Amino acid sequence: MNVTVGGRTRHHRTVAFDSRRNAVLLIEQRLLPHRFEVVAMRDYRETARAIAEMIVRGAGAIGATAAYGLAQGARSFIGSDLEKFSRHVNAVQGTLKAARPTAVDPVNAMNDVRHAMKSGKTVDEQKRLALAAAEKFADEDVEHCEAIGRHGVKLIRNGMKILTHCNAGWLAFVDVGTATAPLYAAQAAGKRFHVFCDETRPRCQGATLTAWELAQQKISHEVIADNAAGHLMQRGEIDMVIVGSDRTLGRTGEVANKIGTYTKAVLAKQHKIPFYVAIPLSTIDWNLKRGRDIPIEERSAGEVLGAWGMTKRGSREFVRIANPSSGARNPGFDLTPPEFIAGIITPVGIFKPKELWGNRKKLGFI
Amino acid sequence: MNVTVGGRTRHHRTVAFDSRRNAVLLIEQRLLPHRFEVVAMRDYRETARAIAEMIVRGAGAIGATAAYGLAQGARSFIGSDLEKFSRHVNAVQGTLKAARPTAVDPVNAMNDVRHAMKSGKTVDEQKRLALAAAEKFADEDVEHCEAIGRHGVKLIRNGMKILTHCNAGWLAFVDVGTATAPLYAAQAAGKRFHVFCDETRPRCQGATLTAWELAQQKISHEVIADNAAGHLMQRGEIDMVIVGSDRTLGRTGEVANKIGTYTKAVLAKQHKIPFYVAIPLSTIDWNLKRGRDIPIEERSAGEVLGAWGMTKRGSREFVRIANPSSGARNPGFDLTPPEFIAGIITPVGIFKPKELWGNRKKLGFI
Repeated sequence: MNVTVGGRTRHHRTVAFDSRRNAVLLIEQRLLPHRFEVVAMRDYRETARAIAEMIVRGAGAIGATAAYGLAQGARSFIGSDLEKFSRHVNAVQGTLKAARPTAVDPVNAMNDVRHAMKSGKTVDEQKRLALAAAEKFADEDVEHCEAIGRHGVKLIRNGMKILTHCNAGWLAFVDVGTATAPLYAAQAAGKRFHVFCDETRPRCQGATLTAWELAQQKISHEVIADNAAGHLMQRGEIDMVIVGSDRTLGRTGEVANKIGTYTKAVLAKQHKIPFYVAIPLSTIDWNLKRGRDIPIEERSAGEVLGAWGMTKRGSREFVRIANPSSGARNPGFDLTPPEFIAGIITPVGIFKPKELWGNRKKLGFI
Repeated sequence: MNVTVGGRTRHHRTVAFDSRRNAVLLIEQRLLPHRFEVVAMRDYRETARAIAEMIVRGAGAIGATAAYGLAQGARSFIGSDLEKFSRHVNAVQGTLKAARPTAVDPVNAMNDVRHAMKSGKTVDEQKRLALAAAEKFADEDVEHCEAIGRHGVKLIRNGMKILTHCNAGWLAFVDVGTATAPLYAAQAAGKRFHVFCDETRPRCQGATLTAWELAQQKISHEVIADNAAGHLMQRGEIDMVIVGSDRTLGRTGEVANKIGTYTKAVLAKQHKIPFYVAIPLSTIDWNLKRGRDIPIEERSAGEVLGAWGMTKRGSREFVRIANPSSGARNPGFDLTPPEFIAGIITPVGIFKPKELWGNRKKLGFI
């Protein structure tokens, strides 16, 4: 999407590839929202480190980064021995996978690339196929998000006030994003609307990343404390909620997403406000039978006990907010049952959560 | 309550008076939770400044501070001319009132003191009566909180996990607090329980003040992001909620309290978890007919866009968290309707919100 630096507006993807330099280009997300910088990873090990250190984050974005990283690693091989090449690519894949060992997107993305490489008869041919497959993976990520936008835009009426939680924006994908896709599509269609960005403690992705995205895109928005949405709903100031999802159960319609999502869903139901979840097909889990079986990651207490921000002197620092001798609980995700969800916005249409299973063919379940 | 500094545990009140030095003693709350310090206000103007600059905050605490400040100002008068003395006391009262112009507790507290002074025939006698009335006001604040504890403690069973929001603790009163009173009473009764402190963005009074209080009192507790309570309730990890209130409507049972209170009440109802509000009688508004008529203060956007905390170098600083070009909405309070409230814990007993009006005599409505 658009980024304006020094008065000049350019289109950027979160992840891109420079084939001449054999470099993966990433937006350095840890500097956002305070500074915008594109960094070039010139070696697959650097690319792996970028995933591990969260220069890039978000399901679609790390999937594409791993796909490009695999092509990058393959292209760095010198020689024509196919067997040695294959062992080298295995090592590259292992390194990239180990960067975020629990994430499923890099694994799937790299499997796609490996599968595409198979038809190559020579090392050079396989290198070309690897890059083509990585580019295809990235392009499809964008197309899926755009398709979510085409379906979701129908829900947005002029003058609406829309709440979103965390960041399921273009920074979490290759471009466009999921929860943000209907917003960007509505803007392109000339609709007027206002977005409330939940701060999304403890990591504040709403206040930092989503607010940055909307500001760059010149979409009317305000940050609110996670505590404020209930009051705004009670006063009739929120007409719709759109969030993303880390994992959606195809069999039950339950949605796992950033901590606090469930709270917003309960509030929305209480106020009869439609609550939508925007997802790419890759996040549908067709196997799991009960949401309760999704392990909820307990993250470090430090995230809750303080915050990262910019000091008056312009240095990015972590400050301890909470009482120094107190500990914290920090569940990273929560689970929203289907009865709280008005619809799941996918690249192939909008479904009630309970309709996913019945539409599993259309939704890509094989 | 107890404060441990340098391994030595002492009992402190939030507000006290040193009659020898004619000084109001205050806990410097802006330094908490990072440093504990008692500061002496040696002149009523200093005391007024302490209220204005929030060295002391919380309804009961600023009421008692104003009462002591009035006595302090009266005692600083030199001479025996009753008329001059009265003009001087008027000026003192005006200065103290102007320190927090919208707060009702300082006004009521100082009216009490002025009323008590009336029976004094000389300046000296009136000075003595002023201090006695201020001491009585402070003692009664403590007694009311203790009475809340005696009633509320019956609700706490062994092994319970209790959620609280913001700080309605002893730091907001002269001692003991309201929402915390049942906790301190339960601890004194030897009950085992665990407290989750909502961080309470944007000002984080839960993570800073309530967590500090509970740590000093050695009560088992953890801080959570405001986003986490819904998940914990869903997993059966919260058995009860207790909060305070800034204003409770005697006619309707509606409760105005820190932003985010309403959200917790909605979540509690969804999970059939009892939601209690602990209040001193002074916060019951017997006049207002509809909660909607309570003006909801819109506070500065800066509070939402950043946070105060302690840097690694040990300096207390404000850091900007949110995207620099984004604004924020910051409603300071919200309104919880009576159907979400299991009971209102008062110094004279626990009532359903709708029972307040029927019990108005018992509850001090004249």
